[in-house]
Amino acid sequence: MCDFKTLEKAATGSRHTLARTLDSLGYNDDGLVPAIAQQYDTGEVLMLAWMNRPAIEESLETGRVCYWSRSRQQFWRKGESSGQVQLLRSMAFDCDGDTILLKVDQTGPACHTGRRSCFFVEVDGDKVTIASEPVIDPEELYK
Amino acid sequence: MCDFKTLEKAATGSRHTLARTLDSLGYNDDGLVPAIAQQYDTGEVLMLAWMNRPAIEESLETGRVCYWSRSRQQFWRKGESSGQVQLLRSMAFDCDGDTILLKVDQTGPACHTGRRSCFFVEVDGDKVTIASEPVIDPEELYK
Repeated sequence: MCDFKTLEKAATGSRHTLARTLDSLGYNDDGLVPAIAQQYDTGEVLMLAWMNRPAIEESLETGRVCYWSRSRQQFWRKGESSGQVQLLRSMAFDCDGDTILLKVDQTGPACHTGRRSCFFVEVDGDKVTIASEPVIDPEELYK
Repeated sequence: MCDFKTLEKAATGSRHTLARTLDSLGYNDDGLVPAIAQQYDTGEVLMLAWMNRPAIEESLETGRVCYWSRSRQQFWRKGESSGQVQLLRSMAFDCDGDTILLKVDQTGPACHTGRRSCFFVEVDGDKVTIASEPVIDPEELYK
């Protein structure tokens, strides 16, 4: 049974068990769910990364966002090498339970290129344009 | 060669070929990339769905967002059955070319439950709470 079928019909304001909801998330074959990080006050979408259940639980426990790195196959405690941490302000799941929305307070740039947001390659007609400048030199971020 | 390695070092404001950028996206094994839909003026994150290259190209050509439905294995022209279309205001790719950010103008609710946003299951301590109300009865949306 998919608990999200129940949740979508539940009354506004009703409360349900987190642990059971986490059981019901639509993890992919690698046990991962995509997580969108949005700056809580400005609404800027900063990045998308992936979480498994332990990363979700750690993020909720510590209040600092922890992802699962698919390339490194290990926990990715955002900011652990760059210092650019994400403080977790809220977490929500979508109607199907297969995406997470994190509202965060991002210290400095979210992007490994030193830009505030990862979404800097913008479509412009039959071209793309580089739409923002690094705010920190990436050499400084990872030295 | 991954073109995004080049793009991340390119000058702000520089322009590059869209077609080649689309060649370089990090499609998964099913040829899909996750796409975040954000209301362009309020910043609200509405939903996440998936696009293949033809869906990206159709969306850019028509100005109406077209996804690929993984459950139905067909194009999903947002609003084709509900009338709740998404007009595309801008499209951007992230630093790794494996996520798309769509800024859209959403007619009515984005969510099949009749809610404005799909992200209505919010974590609250050891519970989740249903954080928003349908703005339209889903029976009305799909009748």
